[in-house]
Amino acid sequence: MTLMGLLGIELPLIQAPLAGVQGSALCIAASAAGALGSLPAAMLAPDALRAELATIRAATSRPFNLNFFCHAAPPPDAAREAAWRSALEPYYREFGIDPAGIAAGPGRRPFDAEAAALVAEFRPPVVSFHFGLPAPELMAQVKSAGAVVLSSATTVDEARWLEAHGADVIIAQGLEAGGHRGHFLSLDLSLQAGTFALLPQVVGAVRVPVVAAGGIADADGVAAAMALGAAGVQVGTAFMLCAEATTPPLHRAALKSPAAAHTALTNLYTGRPARGLLTRLMRELGPLSDVVPEFPLATAALAPLRARAEAAGLTDFSPLWCGQNASGCREMPAAELVRELARGFQR
Amino acid sequence: MTLMGLLGIELPLIQAPLAGVQGSALCIAASAAGALGSLPAAMLAPDALRAELATIRAATSRPFNLNFFCHAAPPPDAAREAAWRSALEPYYREFGIDPAGIAAGPGRRPFDAEAAALVAEFRPPVVSFHFGLPAPELMAQVKSAGAVVLSSATTVDEARWLEAHGADVIIAQGLEAGGHRGHFLSLDLSLQAGTFALLPQVVGAVRVPVVAAGGIADADGVAAAMALGAAGVQVGTAFMLCAEATTPPLHRAALKSPAAAHTALTNLYTGRPARGLLTRLMRELGPLSDVVPEFPLATAALAPLRARAEAAGLTDFSPLWCGQNASGCREMPAAELVRELARGFQR
Repeated sequence: MTLMGLLGIELPLIQAPLAGVQGSALCIAASAAGALGSLPAAMLAPDALRAELATIRAATSRPFNLNFFCHAAPPPDAAREAAWRSALEPYYREFGIDPAGIAAGPGRRPFDAEAAALVAEFRPPVVSFHFGLPAPELMAQVKSAGAVVLSSATTVDEARWLEAHGADVIIAQGLEAGGHRGHFLSLDLSLQAGTFALLPQVVGAVRVPVVAAGGIADADGVAAAMALGAAGVQVGTAFMLCAEATTPPLHRAALKSPAAAHTALTNLYTGRPARGLLTRLMRELGPLSDVVPEFPLATAALAPLRARAEAAGLTDFSPLWCGQNASGCREMPAAELVRELARGFQR
Repeated sequence: MTLMGLLGIELPLIQAPLAGVQGSALCIAASAAGALGSLPAAMLAPDALRAELATIRAATSRPFNLNFFCHAAPPPDAAREAAWRSALEPYYREFGIDPAGIAAGPGRRPFDAEAAALVAEFRPPVVSFHFGLPAPELMAQVKSAGAVVLSSATTVDEARWLEAHGADVIIAQGLEAGGHRGHFLSLDLSLQAGTFALLPQVVGAVRVPVVAAGGIADADGVAAAMALGAAGVQVGTAFMLCAEATTPPLHRAALKSPAAAHTALTNLYTGRPARGLLTRLMRELGPLSDVVPEFPLATAALAPLRARAEAAGLTDFSPLWCGQNASGCREMPAAELVRELARGFQR
């Protein structure tokens, strides 16, 4: 069965879930254009998620992808939190922030029983996970709701693990990709390879369809990924300037600037490595640091700094997620981007 | 003009120069099969280089590529050398080596006036450089000897610099590539991207032909690189098990083992970052370390450790250069590999 048949879509193209810079509008636009639109759930409270799902259902009967992070929520760790706030102390002083007033917060929601119940209720045709797969009983609920299940692999070992644990489609996430790395078997980033190396090795290791992600920005990239054996492609960064994305103005400006040429993996914003444009915080504390609390607890202590800086027009403390190939970022309707990318399938 | 026309070859395929694991035999075999064979000069003394060039000239009239490193030879630095030997002290003790008996040595020869004279004498049709380009007067000598000049770019900025300084062809070296990174404008490795991201951005930035390198292991990889706008491809790792390569038995065994799935960038072996299979030295001291002398001075202090360990069948201190995609490594004649890769141009 082709990926199109499996997912019920016209084009083997997935609009990557972009937590923090999109909601239902981009998902609806991508699906309407024949791709598989995605809705990222990780940063939505249950009520907001329910509202977004209702919006999608009202707008389209086409397939869409509901995306979750499936990390285990870490226990609070007062010592790590204190060390992190201590590392940020000079910034609190600079911006006149009293760290005593900062509430600890989870930052990103993991997939849990409540989310599984929402899946059972709304029955999204496709559900994708980042950071592995949920516990078997939750996974069983997703499958029994009729969802095709996708998850990301950053190594061949992870691809084999995902296939063995029930993933229907594997996203080979090359090191070029923006946002959070999807690794879950090892924290060693050196195990992770670029799309050119990872994709064909994953294709050779599993029997389920493999979707290429990382560095794909235009029709040429789509054609290249298909030449390497992909069953489809997932594109994220190129959608970030689309009118239907909610990418904040400062983030949009950075993506259009020469700064878009320089990304790095950083764990400073959430506690897990993710690829984004270089910022002052990354230059001064990292970009990878040992003093950061466990994912997703790093976010709370940064929130007031980010708010204060952004109000002054600065991105010093903002996560500016972006892949290594921002050349596809242009201000255009998502449908036009989908049409451009689709030309890569016709070669 | 096509890359084939410019280089005088049948296939737009370059056998990557593999210093330390090949000599004239692989170069001759690759050129005879219609690709551009390469001879790496960096680890050859002038007499040995002269002998290899004479061997190539006697064996074939086809074009070949003579490759040089064009770093500046660093001044001796007693303090850094002492710090490096101090870091290695536990290993010297373990293997019963008296570090006082270790001669300092250059390790890799830079392109210099003597090498330029050899180029003028032998007139290789193609000369490639790693780490930028030589000084203008040496570069002029190479050009006036009739050589087409290639050099590697790891960023778009480097590609633009190379074009402006006279490179006729630019090799876009993606982060997947094995061996030494070719960067020369900045030491910041986070500026470097995977082939999927780097290649199309370099193609879009320069007017000279761009050759793709990094992660290309088979005909699918060749087709993918061409889809991304490459004028040709350079393949290295896949040649390392060929009969004509001089890859040592321990290195060959590692390339055939599951260990070939895990590479990292390390500066421990030479002083500059290069991609190779994980070794004990890399696990215990790095893989990237601040105590290493400047390139290429790190090599001398490791030489007796490497020799002692290899005699015991251990690769603990051996540079096992390898790219992120070793899936193309098979024991076959180079001509057969060239034929397999060439199928990627016919799509």
